Amino acid sequence: MPDEFGVVAPPRTRILAAARDLFHRHGLRGVGVDAIAEAAGTNKMTLYRHFESKDELIVAYLRGAVSEADDIWREIERENPDDAPAQLRSWLKRAEDCITVDGRGCDLANAAVELTETAHPARRIIEKMKTEQRDRLANLCRRAGIPKSGVLADTLTLLLEGARVSRQAAGCNGPSAKFISTAETVIETFKAKAKAPAKRSSHKRAR
Amino acid sequence: MPDEFGVVAPPRTRILAAARDLFHRHGLRGVGVDAIAEAAGTNKMTLYRHFESKDELIVAYLRGAVSEADDIWREIERENPDDAPAQLRSWLKRAEDCITVDGRGCDLANAAVELTETAHPARRIIEKMKTEQRDRLANLCRRAGIPKSGVLADTLTLLLEGARVSRQAAGCNGPSAKFISTAETVIETFKAKAKAPAKRSSHKRAR
Repeated sequence: MPDEFGVVAPPRTRILAAARDLFHRHGLRGVGVDAIAEAAGTNKMTLYRHFESKDELIVAYLRGAVSEADDIWREIERENPDDAPAQLRSWLKRAEDCITVDGRGCDLANAAVELTETAHPARRIIEKMKTEQRDRLANLCRRAGIPKSGVLADTLTLLLEGARVSRQAAGCNGPSAKFISTAETVIETFKAKAKAPAKRSSHKRAR
Repeated sequence: MPDEFGVVAPPRTRILAAARDLFHRHGLRGVGVDAIAEAAGTNKMTLYRHFESKDELIVAYLRGAVSEADDIWREIERENPDDAPAQLRSWLKRAEDCITVDGRGCDLANAAVELTETAHPARRIIEKMKTEQRDRLANLCRRAGIPKSGVLADTLTLLLEGARVSRQAAGCNGPSAKFISTAETVIETFKAKAKAPAKRSSHKRAR
């Protein structure tokens, strides 16, 4: 498949692109290496020259998803330089987009559901990425001046993960349709607490 | 496998029990009908006499999960008769238990992630069950006297779905560990709004 300049991408790139598309749409177990090789315009032998096993291809695919998420964070920061509240709004808008535009949910969370073997090499990648995303969001909430930024990041993370899986389970008119209003209400509540007069509380200090 | 009275369950019951255990642990695509037949102490021919296809077995397995969820709702109501606030606390406790005790998440949400074919007969069952669960929770919140019960039910549903998938993706020390405190805070916030003096708001009226 030549691009607009008539250049054909190297096999490894084509295989990864095909895996990304097919794994995303049909799940990791819903598609075999034959179908991926065919979609990449190559064959299984070539695929196995670049990726020792299907598991190695899965790991490479998930690393790609992590890299795309990193790009999104960089974009959010570049488009809203030194403006944490605007960055948080941008995060929220992008979160909402990925729920409404793409009904298949998060590639990494979906992979966690499918890869039930605790020793699967992909599990470490998924856990590390999910932890980093949450910490990045907590950092953003803190920079935006919202108190209990760690608790807020946990809440927003659960709402987003929930919305992405609920979109698949309950359909697009289910609770996932309420993600943005729910998340905005939660953020406003955390902000309002900051403005309210301080009072004794038994809550633990947020990270 | 005889029970404590030496009675062997009929094949259909044994097949369903084995499917429930194996599908739950390894996913729908992570286990084949041979393994299920073997675990049930029978063979593939007998399995296919009771279930025309693996998809039919999947549907029966998910119907069983729906039935178990119905039992939990009945228990919640029986243990806390005519006491909606206590029923809501009981719901919360059971939700927390299912996150911490069982790392594999919700059978129906997991199935929605795995069954990517939009026409799969199981999808209707999943969507119907998820819609009913949310409506049941909204009804409970309303009976507990909490305003905007529909919005609260959507929020709690997203938090729970999120916690169950986050437990699988980010591990047991990730945001899922904050489910109960997050959910309690959300419920208190909704209650507090009811006590606060009414003021003009641009929010849409809750269901």
